[in-house]
Parts: sequence; structure tokens; C-alpha cells
Amino acid sequence: MAPAVKVYGWAVSPFVARPLLCLEEAGVDYELVPMSRAAGDHRQPDFLARNPFGQVPVLEDGDLTLFESRAIARHVLRKHKPELLGCGSPEAEAMVDVWLEVEAHQYNPAVSAIVVQCIILPLLGGARDQAVVDENVAKLKKVLEVYEARLSASRYLAGDDISLADLSHFPFTRYLMETSTRRWWRSSPT
Amino acid sequence: MAPAVKVYGWAVSPFVARPLLCLEEAGVDYELVPMSRAAGDHRQPDFLARNPFGQVPVLEDGDLTLFESRAIARHVLRKHKPELLGCGSPEAEAMVDVWLEVEAHQYNPAVSAIVVQCIILPLLGGARDQAVVDENVAKLKKVLEVYEARLSASRYLAGDDISLADLSHFPFTRYLMETSTRRWWRSSPT
Repeated sequence: MAPAVKVYGWAVSPFVARPLLCLEEAGVDYELVPMSRAAGDHRQPDFLARNPFGQVPVLEDGDLTLFESRAIARHVLRKHKPELLGCGSPEAEAMVDVWLEVEAHQYNPAVSAIVVQCIILPLLGGARDQAVVDENVAKLKKVLEVYEARLSASRYLAGDDISLADLSHFPFTRYLMETSTRRWWRSSPT
Repeated sequence: MAPAVKVYGWAVSPFVARPLLCLEEAGVDYELVPMSRAAGDHRQPDFLARNPFGQVPVLEDGDLTLFESRAIARHVLRKHKPELLGCGSPEAEAMVDVWLEVEAHQYNPAVSAIVVQCIILPLLGGARDQAVVDENVAKLKKVLEVYEARLSASRYLAGDDISLADLSHFPFTRYLMETSTRRWWRSSPT
């Protein structure tokens, strides 16, 4: 029988990787429905009916169709591994929410700008804008100073237990590690 | 007795208004601790100990200290009005999460850019960059086309019941209505 859970998208996308990571972590059987960005599959009517914003990923779980990677991640974990959302303790849930928002609004804007300039644009035949890279490396350094202090006081971002707040950082960080800024962040004092 | 819930920030900030709206909606007794942006209160050590990113709002609820406006909003509603998060129905919760992410990643980037250019910069003595306004009005139009279709099919963004997904739009929309783009969005076909 085909899995009840389908993910539409391409696994190379960090946005798609976020829910895939949660599905793998929770041991959920799922099907990754192949799509081609080059062929414009995300602009086709059947896909726009699933996500009117035309972005991957989309998750189908039975009759439920979801988009936005962090919302999908929450759904998968709430259903299959709620401890990664801190469920059961209002304080733990609140701290997971805080550090998920930090990932989305402090960490991700800087990292995604660096990844776009250093990896995506060159892949598309464009040239990186070094001023944008420098500006965002400076922003990222300030964010990572906060992380350094936080992770000196608690084992994981949301507290003593691993959570979606940590997992949600993986997909873009994997690409950050491929950029030349890696030399900087690996050489930072620990 | 002083309220157990304290909010640090200035109410004119849309980021502060988001949790205030939830506290009011849930009928929670709270204290808004006055702070001055002009005096740099958000850069002082006592505030940085509450939020190392130096941003308002911060909420204290007993021993719990939270930052990031959407995380605070979730905490307030989970504790005092969980139906606004769709709690109790996994499907409803997932749809609230989807449209909260849409607010954060589709609607808010365009609207906040317009508000910064049309209201914040002039207040600080700067001049608006009309190209940035035009670019973001175009982005906002596409987002609102999706909203129009969504709200033709369901009463509220996440479904038939009002939720945090709707409330979370209010603070920046209130400022958008003060900009000259108001003429455009009020004259859009309904």
C-alpha cells in the first residue's frame, strides 16, 4: 500500500529538507513525489491547487494538505513525536516556540542570504555580491554570539532536550557549511 | 497585587501589539512595563538579560521569560484561549500553523517593507525609496490574491473559526492602512 503521507518537492531544497528531517526523525513512512523545478512543475495548476503560493514543500496526510515548511514540521511532530515540540509542558513548548522563531527571524535571514549569494547565484550563472555576503556574515556573527551564550547555559536551544528548534536549523546550515564562510565559523573560538 | 504577567516594550510597536492583542483577547490581567526606545532601554544589560537580541517585546509570566512576538502570542493563547490555536483538533491546529507561517513569510515581509518606507523612515527624517514601495506593493497584491481566494472558500484564514492566524495580521495592517497604499487596497475589487 502506498504511504498515506506524500511530500511534493525536491529534496535538494532546504525548505523541503526541513519536513523530510522530521519525517525521518519520527520514523514515518512517506513518499517523496518527484517534481522538477526546471520544468516549472511548481507553477502548474495541479500544484497551485495544493499551494497557491507555488512553493515547495507541500505535504499531504490523508485529506489534509499543508504548506510552509515549519507548519508541516510541526504537524508531523505533533502527530508522531510530540516530545520534539515540548508537548506536555507549557514551559517547554513555549521555549521551543521562542527558539523556532529565533531560527526563522534571526538566524535564517542571514544564513539564507549568504547561501543565495555563495551557492545559488553562482549555480544560476550569476555573480555573488560580496557586500551582501559581508553584511550578512556580520549579522550572523552577532546571532551566533547569542547562541554561544545560550548553549553554554543549556544543552540544546530550547532547554535540556533536543527539539524542533534545533532540527529546524539543519537544512540551511548544511549549505552554509559548503560556503567559504565555513572557514570563519569553524575557526571561531568555542 | 501586581499582575503575574509583564510585557516589556512600547505599545506603538506592531511587534509589541501582537502579544498585547492576544492578552486583551484572552482577558488576561497584565502590566505593560514602560520602556523608551529613544533612551535605548532595549540596549541596557537588564533588558538584554531578558532578550539577548535586544528587541521588544519580552513577556514575563511568573518564572518564564519569553521573546519573539509570535512565540509569546502562542504561549498566551495556549494558556488562556487555546481555541484560537485550534487546540483539540490536529487538523485545525495544522491549518492555524500554515496561515501563521503565511503571515510571517508571505504577508509580513511585503507589508513591513511598505510601512518602513512610508511611515518609519519619514518619521526618522529619511526619505522613502519609491522603488522599494512599488516592488513590495506588487508582492503584496499577489499575496492578497491568494487571501481573496482563500477567504471566498472559508470564513477565516485557518478555516471557519477565527484564530491567531487572523489576529497576527492586525498590528502591521493597522499601519498599512495609514499609508498611501491604502487607496489601492481599499479600491481593489471585493
